[in-house]
Amino acid sequence: MTMEPMRAPGGAEVRPLQVGMVLYPGFTLLDLVGPQAVLGLHGQTHLLWKTRDPVVSDSGPAMLPTTTFAACPEDLDILFVPGGMGTADALEDTEILQFLRDHAPRARYVTSVCTGSLILGAAGLLRGYRATTHWACHALLSAFGAERVEARVVTDRNRVSGGGVTAGIDFGLTLLAQLRGEQVAKLTQLMVEYDPEPPFDAGTPRTADPALVAQVRAHLDADVQRMLRVATVTPGHAASP
Amino acid sequence: MTMEPMRAPGGAEVRPLQVGMVLYPGFTLLDLVGPQAVLGLHGQTHLLWKTRDPVVSDSGPAMLPTTTFAACPEDLDILFVPGGMGTADALEDTEILQFLRDHAPRARYVTSVCTGSLILGAAGLLRGYRATTHWACHALLSAFGAERVEARVVTDRNRVSGGGVTAGIDFGLTLLAQLRGEQVAKLTQLMVEYDPEPPFDAGTPRTADPALVAQVRAHLDADVQRMLRVATVTPGHAASP
Repeated sequence: MTMEPMRAPGGAEVRPLQVGMVLYPGFTLLDLVGPQAVLGLHGQTHLLWKTRDPVVSDSGPAMLPTTTFAACPEDLDILFVPGGMGTADALEDTEILQFLRDHAPRARYVTSVCTGSLILGAAGLLRGYRATTHWACHALLSAFGAERVEARVVTDRNRVSGGGVTAGIDFGLTLLAQLRGEQVAKLTQLMVEYDPEPPFDAGTPRTADPALVAQVRAHLDADVQRMLRVATVTPGHAASP
Repeated sequence: MTMEPMRAPGGAEVRPLQVGMVLYPGFTLLDLVGPQAVLGLHGQTHLLWKTRDPVVSDSGPAMLPTTTFAACPEDLDILFVPGGMGTADALEDTEILQFLRDHAPRARYVTSVCTGSLILGAAGLLRGYRATTHWACHALLSAFGAERVEARVVTDRNRVSGGGVTAGIDFGLTLLAQLRGEQVAKLTQLMVEYDPEPPFDAGTPRTADPALVAQVRAHLDADVQRMLRVATVTPGHAASP
């Protein structure tokens, strides 16, 4: 459940946030919907893609873009990229990378969750910035010239990144507090009843059974290796110029 | 980021879960996508609506149904209803309620998150069952004949319900453990890096500033009152037969 765009606790009218979220085939729905659930409440969400055709996520369901890359507003408060199993393809999609390079300089915040950080990296937007990504992909951040930080949410100047998938909720509330203040972020957290009770203590390699950690790494290995090749063979992407 | 349908840790092949998730205008995206991110990984997600036309969520973005009510598979492992600002309308939509009454007896689990529980209640599917919903709507559960429980996730026989919005992730992992075992649930939790770090301790009325609790209650009051009227004036819905 969400609510209408809220006023600041003092009652002052505030400009609705302009939130631009990039779609691509094989994005992870929850990477996008976690942040959208808290940020989208305070403004307008633009789901951005090359066309207005449905974009299929990596868990099956499709979302409808609302805005093409060409029609993206110039005054985004937030430019956001989700991760997903389609990230490896997105890293080599020059149209996506060029769109990000064009709009990042005009956006107030340039942001990502999960492997979306690698797409920002491939666009050259994280060189010299501290950032995070999905735990199984941390090594790739350095390959794209970012300073990797193993944390749930990382803010460095106007770059804000979140860890894997569910980190998007923590990311969204953290960013909302920066944009609208802590009271609005707390009100939103209460509205979405974000008082998590994970049924197991298995959400990070620090606490999970090492056999499960190895199983996830093995499952993702081919993609990680492929993304590492993209990072190292493309001069514009690599850490060293 | 998600992964292909996984095998059980022993390597045995398992039948893909058939997950039926009901859409309606004004549903909350995150209510649905939290569970879908963990359950949909292990089978096929059917996004169900009267037609195949896009259904607009209460935070703006639209999802594309994959399956009409009429074409819904008979052998659902999970029948799921999300909450949302459109719940009050859905409670009076006889086509939705009839669809739920038709399919619930054949589904292995009949489930909901947030105010989706009230829709199950309006369909008469929670009479005599313990259940939960969004914290601001607990009183309504009794009006629909359920036994209200203030908990993050509540299981009673084959009814499983979650609290508000973000509770859907805890709900999904809990249900997955029941269907596939704890190891698969833990593997999935690790994959979606579910190791939450809420930036504030404000996600429940037990910990939030009372002024914020009052603000959310005031915001939702008209809807709550309207839903209460539906519960009490419709004989088939009410707690007393």
